[in-house]
Amino acid sequence: MTSQLVIALDAMGGDRAPQIVVRGAEIARERHPTVRFLMFGDEAQISPLLARYPELSKVTTLRHTDGIIRSGDKPSAALRTGRDSSMWMAIDAVSSGEANAVISAGNTGALMVIARFVLKMLPGIDRPAICGFFPTARGVTAMLDLGANVRCNAKNLSQFAVMGEVFARTVMGLERPTIGLVNVGVEDLKGVEEVREAAAILRATDLPIEFKGFIEGTDIAAGTVDVVVTDGFTGNVALKTAEGILKLYAGFLREAFRENIFSKIGYFFVRRSIAKLRERIDPREYNGAMLLGLNGIVVKSHGGTDALGFANAIGVGIDMALHGFIEKMKHDFASLGIAETSQPREAAKL
Amino acid sequence: MTSQLVIALDAMGGDRAPQIVVRGAEIARERHPTVRFLMFGDEAQISPLLARYPELSKVTTLRHTDGIIRSGDKPSAALRTGRDSSMWMAIDAVSSGEANAVISAGNTGALMVIARFVLKMLPGIDRPAICGFFPTARGVTAMLDLGANVRCNAKNLSQFAVMGEVFARTVMGLERPTIGLVNVGVEDLKGVEEVREAAAILRATDLPIEFKGFIEGTDIAAGTVDVVVTDGFTGNVALKTAEGILKLYAGFLREAFRENIFSKIGYFFVRRSIAKLRERIDPREYNGAMLLGLNGIVVKSHGGTDALGFANAIGVGIDMALHGFIEKMKHDFASLGIAETSQPREAAKL
Repeated sequence: MTSQLVIALDAMGGDRAPQIVVRGAEIARERHPTVRFLMFGDEAQISPLLARYPELSKVTTLRHTDGIIRSGDKPSAALRTGRDSSMWMAIDAVSSGEANAVISAGNTGALMVIARFVLKMLPGIDRPAICGFFPTARGVTAMLDLGANVRCNAKNLSQFAVMGEVFARTVMGLERPTIGLVNVGVEDLKGVEEVREAAAILRATDLPIEFKGFIEGTDIAAGTVDVVVTDGFTGNVALKTAEGILKLYAGFLREAFRENIFSKIGYFFVRRSIAKLRERIDPREYNGAMLLGLNGIVVKSHGGTDALGFANAIGVGIDMALHGFIEKMKHDFASLGIAETSQPREAAKL
Repeated sequence: MTSQLVIALDAMGGDRAPQIVVRGAEIARERHPTVRFLMFGDEAQISPLLARYPELSKVTTLRHTDGIIRSGDKPSAALRTGRDSSMWMAIDAVSSGEANAVISAGNTGALMVIARFVLKMLPGIDRPAICGFFPTARGVTAMLDLGANVRCNAKNLSQFAVMGEVFARTVMGLERPTIGLVNVGVEDLKGVEEVREAAAILRATDLPIEFKGFIEGTDIAAGTVDVVVTDGFTGNVALKTAEGILKLYAGFLREAFRENIFSKIGYFFVRRSIAKLRERIDPREYNGAMLLGLNGIVVKSHGGTDALGFANAIGVGIDMALHGFIEKMKHDFASLGIAETSQPREAAKL
């Protein structure tokens, strides 16, 4: 790794690209003055935007690309025809070693299949998982998978647990992160087979991870564990249900403050504390989902985020690169004896 | 149906039984003065409690039962040995026609298997589903399955859609309720096979239901549809994630109001509006989950609720009985030509 980090940016991905990408990069530059950017996209659109930020221009190399992968494109089509796209070229920069991480707010499915095709999986890991942050009563929790794999077997889930553990330990700086596996509370069934089996694997294994067993949906926001593991279908629905509830509550709160003259007066006094509360659950603060399991750092920003949100996603990529996440994943998966899936004994272990 | 409704109560189910059951019945009696109660449980414990409410005592018949099904009991064990329990006897009262509905705050798994064993399924329905209410920006949404079936095939899901539709139309009083099927938004995969297949069935069918196709987690609280259909694993996790988030937000809000002297002054002015907000999302208001698909009305109250919550669960059972829910289910499933699963053509339809 070079002493100076280089971050590749897909400047054409997201609802308001390339504007928010350039403005987000400027915010990230202020926060991380030594980082350099490698920006991929339409020069005619990006150059005038970059020109507004002389400091950013100094640390940015712009590479023109013709192709754009749209949010509605099928990932399979993007994989076939997207080689000249800003997304593909940005991922390529990580593969070639030119960049330490890539950030994109574009098509999630396309990002996943192209990143997997270009970067390949880390040894010992079968499938990538999308990992995101979740606000909790105790701070923040990492949760995976948020939608990369709608169906997961026990082996996938137990690998996600180990990936999440390495992430929480190295990037979130937790000495001994706790891991929980999402299950349901109806007593007679206690969840689906693969979840029970994954728990059995994680309990039986000699991996030095702090597996806390099953957790329920309520435990996610309670912050019962540092890493929440579930399949991509459940994780995606849970995350989006939570987003919906936060929005609902915020709407109800807004209505409450506008209800009458008393509540309006009350709001005047309490508004600064409420602003802080809003910050605690601001989705922009939690923006930046990591595609874990790949041989390279890939961060997906929410497509509808603003410059601040995009800057936070860049920050996640920088953090992962600074902490040498990929090297630690390689080291840990290798030293745990789970790197070689071809060895039956080890394969059976995870 | 008799002109006077009779509600069977499992007086021994729930964390604070029989106290909250008796007090909940008293609140329900005030709201529904013509309803009679058939209470099952330990006479020595219940009689002194009932004695405090002379009006309730007049409309209540107490039947002593020896057995109690505990929250930790395995449903299979409860099914084998629970025949003398308050839960079983209360369900029996619906089966024998003595009562129009049964309410229990006890062991969900046991309630499900015993109710299914005693009451049987309605013709044309393969599996019961737990259906609950969810607060939304537009009012309230019904959601099923919340945990009865951790795995569902396409046929189960499409039956749940029809069950939910009948429920929303008859009990919630919606003329043409809209139905959505929970899916994930990652474009390349668009969900698991059974969900895609269920959508195909619901689109192809000539049932007069307003199927809106796929929805995502965010749509639940947004109130995009009147009836949210999903498998029991996803539904259970989504519901509990939402509960957790509501609790988290409420905690953050409490902290915000206590932060400093300004926020405390603000709270003084805004407290009545905040109390109303809390009521809008009070879980007690949404207490009472219906076990749909059975040949009898069974309502499950949250085990940890208070008397008000339990009274609301009783209210749900009364509403279903008043609207002749079971008769409408029978009629609709029969007239839609899906009652006879033995007819291959019809069976293929749903």
